[in-house]
Amino acid sequence: MTGGPYELQPIGWVESPLADREKAPKQGDEGSPEAWLVFEQGVSEGLGDLQPDTDVLVLTWLDRARRDVLRVHPRSDPANAEQGVFSTRSPDRPNPIGLHRVGVLSVEGTRVRVRDLEALDGTPVIDVKPVIEPRLDR
Amino acid sequence: MTGGPYELQPIGWVESPLADREKAPKQGDEGSPEAWLVFEQGVSEGLGDLQPDTDVLVLTWLDRARRDVLRVHPRSDPANAEQGVFSTRSPDRPNPIGLHRVGVLSVEGTRVRVRDLEALDGTPVIDVKPVIEPRLDR
Repeated sequence: MTGGPYELQPIGWVESPLADREKAPKQGDEGSPEAWLVFEQGVSEGLGDLQPDTDVLVLTWLDRARRDVLRVHPRSDPANAEQGVFSTRSPDRPNPIGLHRVGVLSVEGTRVRVRDLEALDGTPVIDVKPVIEPRLDR
Repeated sequence: MTGGPYELQPIGWVESPLADREKAPKQGDEGSPEAWLVFEQGVSEGLGDLQPDTDVLVLTWLDRARRDVLRVHPRSDPANAEQGVFSTRSPDRPNPIGLHRVGVLSVEGTRVRVRDLEALDGTPVIDVKPVIEPRLDR
């Protein structure tokens, strides 16, 4: 019933001191170093309104992940029972898309300096979106 | 410098009364009807821990979007100046990935009933992730 496959074209990549998956923090605010998002010149018009001192959502393609994994042991308790990957943030999953809330530090042309990004050096960037907080009035 | 393209394989699709982009709400909590996420049998092992009465993030492939758009008029003020798409939630963008925070109502095998999903009927589903609230202690 599903169509596809669909083709993702990276719009940039991550420059980070993080090179090793085993040493990378599991979430961005658990000790990630500052990093750069480096965008392709072809998408520079789309970047014009990114502002320092705001948070944005960065979507990446976790190109070193496994795509054939459906159950994983929870990181908080590796000895515990496996969980379905759709209830975890494991990078290993059928479509290994990383979702990262990062703080924008500076915007220098097509280079954007960010904090709290746990993605590895060279990871493809596929999208950037503004944060929308959920409505609290329901 | 970027590799790719990368191949996204849908894991399911949306069943929703929403059929027309012009009539769909722009955000899920702005009057979306209840909808179903229907998953491929091949990923059912990954769904095992989804729980009713929780919120999850659903990632979709917005297959009716334009991919050649880098600047758009803001929805709140269409007469206003264009903004870069990466500062908006416009579906039209180089990689049209939809990010939806939805409430799980029930899980019935590979069919998951949700509220607050503004995606159109037939939209491919590409991932589901748990919500992780940002840390407030920084």
